[in-house]
Amino acid sequence: MDGLAATLLVLDYAAVAVFAVAGALAAARRKHDIITFGFFAAVTGVGGGTLRDLLIGSPVFWVHQPTYLVVCLAAAVAIWLSGWGRARGRLLLWFDAVGLSAYAVVGALKALSLGAPPLSAIVMGVLTATFGGVLRDVLANEPSVLLRRELYVTAALVGAAVFVALVALGLPFIAAGAAGFLTAFVVRGGAILFGWSLPGFPGRAPPDP
Amino acid sequence: MDGLAATLLVLDYAAVAVFAVAGALAAARRKHDIITFGFFAAVTGVGGGTLRDLLIGSPVFWVHQPTYLVVCLAAAVAIWLSGWGRARGRLLLWFDAVGLSAYAVVGALKALSLGAPPLSAIVMGVLTATFGGVLRDVLANEPSVLLRRELYVTAALVGAAVFVALVALGLPFIAAGAAGFLTAFVVRGGAILFGWSLPGFPGRAPPDP
Amino acid sequence: MDGLAATLLVLDYAAVAVFAVAGALAAARRKHDIITFGFFAAVTGVGGGTLRDLLIGSPVFWVHQPTYLVVCLAAAVAIWLSGWGRARGRLLLWFDAVGLSAYAVVGALKALSLGAPPLSAIVMGVLTATFGGVLRDVLANEPSVLLRRELYVTAALVGAAVFVALVALGLPFIAAGAAGFLTAFVVRGGAILFGWSLPGFPGRAPPDP
Repeated sequence: MDGLAATLLVLDYAAVAVFAVAGALAAARRKHDIITFGFFAAVTGVGGGTLRDLLIGSPVFWVHQPTYLVVCLAAAVAIWLSGWGRARGRLLLWFDAVGLSAYAVVGALKALSLGAPPLSAIVMGVLTATFGGVLRDVLANEPSVLLRRELYVTAALVGAAVFVALVALGLPFIAAGAAGFLTAFVVRGGAILFGWSLPGFPGRAPPDP
Repeated sequence: MDGLAATLLVLDYAAVAVFAVAGALAAARRKHDIITFGFFAAVTGVGGGTLRDLLIGSPVFWVHQPTYLVVCLAAAVAIWLSGWGRARGRLLLWFDAVGLSAYAVVGALKALSLGAPPLSAIVMGVLTATFGGVLRDVLANEPSVLLRRELYVTAALVGAAVFVALVALGLPFIAAGAAGFLTAFVVRGGAILFGWSLPGFPGRAPPDP
Repeated sequence: MDGLAATLLVLDYAAVAVFAVAGALAAARRKHDIITFGFFAAVTGVGGGTLRDLLIGSPVFWVHQPTYLVVCLAAAVAIWLSGWGRARGRLLLWFDAVGLSAYAVVGALKALSLGAPPLSAIVMGVLTATFGGVLRDVLANEPSVLLRRELYVTAALVGAAVFVALVALGLPFIAAGAAGFLTAFVVRGGAILFGWSLPGFPGRAPPDP
């Protein structure tokens, strides 16, 4: 297995596992049963990568490789058994941040590996990194994380852009991936800890139609 | 046509028809016009099977076979003309239950027939069985049926699991499909009639992030 | 390039651009930052065509042709810089109306060009024309435009139906496309200006389940 495939694999499992935990924590917030825990873990865990694979025309990664589903279900059972109610509520945000950073890189990487141009690869990283959390919020009928003021899409964007730029400069995938992951994680982490945000639209908002 | 294909076809049309009725009833609840009836009937009717086909990489079933759309539109017109306002509100739930049970089997069956491993086939049954109702609720801006306490995902899960297990044991598709359908329908029916539910998460819920 | 391809191309870019503007205006309504402007512009701009391509099994149009993304990002920057707060709130509705009309034709056209039967082509036009706006509303956590009383789905339906019927009668794509576009735009414009609507469901609504 070459560096590309190995990087892809490790990051894919990492993103799936942490998004699955974030999905199970969302189910815990509403005191759902164990089956719904598993459903939210699976949908959140594989949602982003599923969108990525559909968009780039690749076979959906978990359909013929059910290990990914096992990881999701194990995450759901672990959260259930551990009774994470004692955990601080922000834990969900941190798991989401790790998943966001991993998928920003892995989404862009898989797109590049299938021949997509750099801009498309960056957008693919952003879309797939944010789709897991958006899907979880839409299914849980909560305001999407997209609508918060703190940096979210931006973190995925800079992570994917750093990764694609470093690959274009000739760095190995492992190094470029680590740099992209860390950049996204630092930006999102700063948003969680310190409320980092960009200035909002300076014009007057259009009135409601 | 062999048993597999025939089972697939009958269940596919059954699931489409009953989900289309459930979609039209959702439109009736909000007094929409006839075109919106048809739109909700079509989206709810073919939504689950569309997701299934996209995920397993099969051509989307209704695109080159518009009979499915005709069934959806006929369901919308029938609900409109019959003025089902006199019906009890729970009717929507029962149509949804039939669609859920049929798609749990047919989603798993089509995945198996394309070579997916058993766990993926079960998950495919669950996702496609629940996606029609979720899509209808999201489009109608109502809390998703996923969030109710009664068994819903669980019914699809046991139906798909029973079906896949019986197929693995060598039963004919018709018999395994009937058993899977009935299992799902009994579980979901018990949830509707008696409020069957599994225990919720016993730990303290994490506070809102 | 023949007439079919040229028509497709012009309408595709037009639909993407105006939906991108509508997406950016939705972000402006909530005073989002420039990155979220771009995200909403891109998702709304390419969402309808992406669904169309997935459903008909065609490679997703923007993945290997990033010009579409550049158009979306340019629209976001233009809305940001121009400070369109002075614009009337209905502007978003008019941009949405142009996108709806263009996609009703272009969705049906691409489906026809890949051999879909007429009914499927019309439905494809409707689904793809309405999906951009629905996606924008779901992501922005607003009631979907589908739920308004004025004609919306109907406008896409008559536009796509006129287009497909005229093509079937042998008219050139350009003429049929212009007629379909104008029909959809007049119907949707009348709905915006005069509140045109069809009669709602006359029966008693089923009570809540």
